[in-house]
Amino acid sequence: MILTKQNILDFEKLYRNAFVNSITGYKSASLIGTVLKQGDTNLAIFNSVIHVGANPPALGFLMRPVSVERHTYNNIKETGFFTINHINKDIYKQAHQTSARYEESVSEFDACGLTPNYTETIKAPYVKESEIKIGLKFVEEKEVKFNKTILIVGEIILPDDVTAKDGFVDIERASSIAISGLDSYHETKRIARLSYAKPF
Amino acid sequence: MILTKQNILDFEKLYRNAFVNSITGYKSASLIGTVLKQGDTNLAIFNSVIHVGANPPALGFLMRPVSVERHTYNNIKETGFFTINHINKDIYKQAHQTSARYEESVSEFDACGLTPNYTETIKAPYVKESEIKIGLKFVEEKEVKFNKTILIVGEIILPDDVTAKDGFVDIERASSIAISGLDSYHETKRIARLSYAKPF
Repeated sequence: MILTKQNILDFEKLYRNAFVNSITGYKSASLIGTVLKQGDTNLAIFNSVIHVGANPPALGFLMRPVSVERHTYNNIKETGFFTINHINKDIYKQAHQTSARYEESVSEFDACGLTPNYTETIKAPYVKESEIKIGLKFVEEKEVKFNKTILIVGEIILPDDVTAKDGFVDIERASSIAISGLDSYHETKRIARLSYAKPF
Repeated sequence: MILTKQNILDFEKLYRNAFVNSITGYKSASLIGTVLKQGDTNLAIFNSVIHVGANPPALGFLMRPVSVERHTYNNIKETGFFTINHINKDIYKQAHQTSARYEESVSEFDACGLTPNYTETIKAPYVKESEIKIGLKFVEEKEVKFNKTILIVGEIILPDDVTAKDGFVDIERASSIAISGLDSYHETKRIARLSYAKPF
């Protein structure tokens, strides 16, 4: 089936959201933890975390416009810190539940049954139940003018509890899962690791 | 094991690259197709494609600084178009091979054994062997000052050959695969689709 842009624009809203969200391919499944100055925690599921650079080590994620999704944004701008925590098979239902529209005064940790964990270095809560947790310092934001989404970039300060071997972190062994679309969760099975490619 | 930022900076370069690239979680596996004005094609593997918005429909990807990776960038800026093609189980080896440093005059389609496919709408080649192919018009670029990487945003013009059902594109059925790190390819198995989350 060949679709035109007009076909997509003519889709019913939820159908269009599901459609465009699924054709990106598999996405990382992360919980982003932040805290307000007064100690209130926020936890939100994101599927847009990407690698930004290895030196200095940095990750980023794209968030919806501030008019739609301001808790995580405000907390990061207030404190300058956030955590990225991999979603694994044991917590994907709790993680999905964080996408419900809770009031700002409600902590998704409490509401969804996950446990905040603090270190002295990062002013943001980790998710105790996550196998791979990364603490980041906010360094930059970029607003995409096209639709007001915001790329948030953070420098990795303290990745906690990661198992490294030859530099490669076996996220499959850590039970990290992948997302497709908005609501589909997938476990994985390695096909292969390929060697560094050179022209034949 | 708890690592500090200094530990990461002290890693040997390739080890650090693998490490930081793997802790983002699973990534989409895409081939991005472009063409020069004179008709020379370019095809490159990317694991940084993300959803940008559903209305207007838009995807994006983060690319390394122009000083490092200029073929794809130059072609997009010249023609204003690019294609995103899902990597599936049948072509992941060819897809990985496109990351080899070929000369600008070499088409990765030819060198890696993949077939370019053209439509009248998009001035960029699709990958015939890919099950899910998306044609995009370049709309915006954002340079991350922190490390000169570039977020490229494209509006979806023509997704070709996608199978939609209730808006959800079953990328697992299309044999799309996921990447972790720089060189690890994974097939997936759906755990569940969850319903729209509401506060309890």
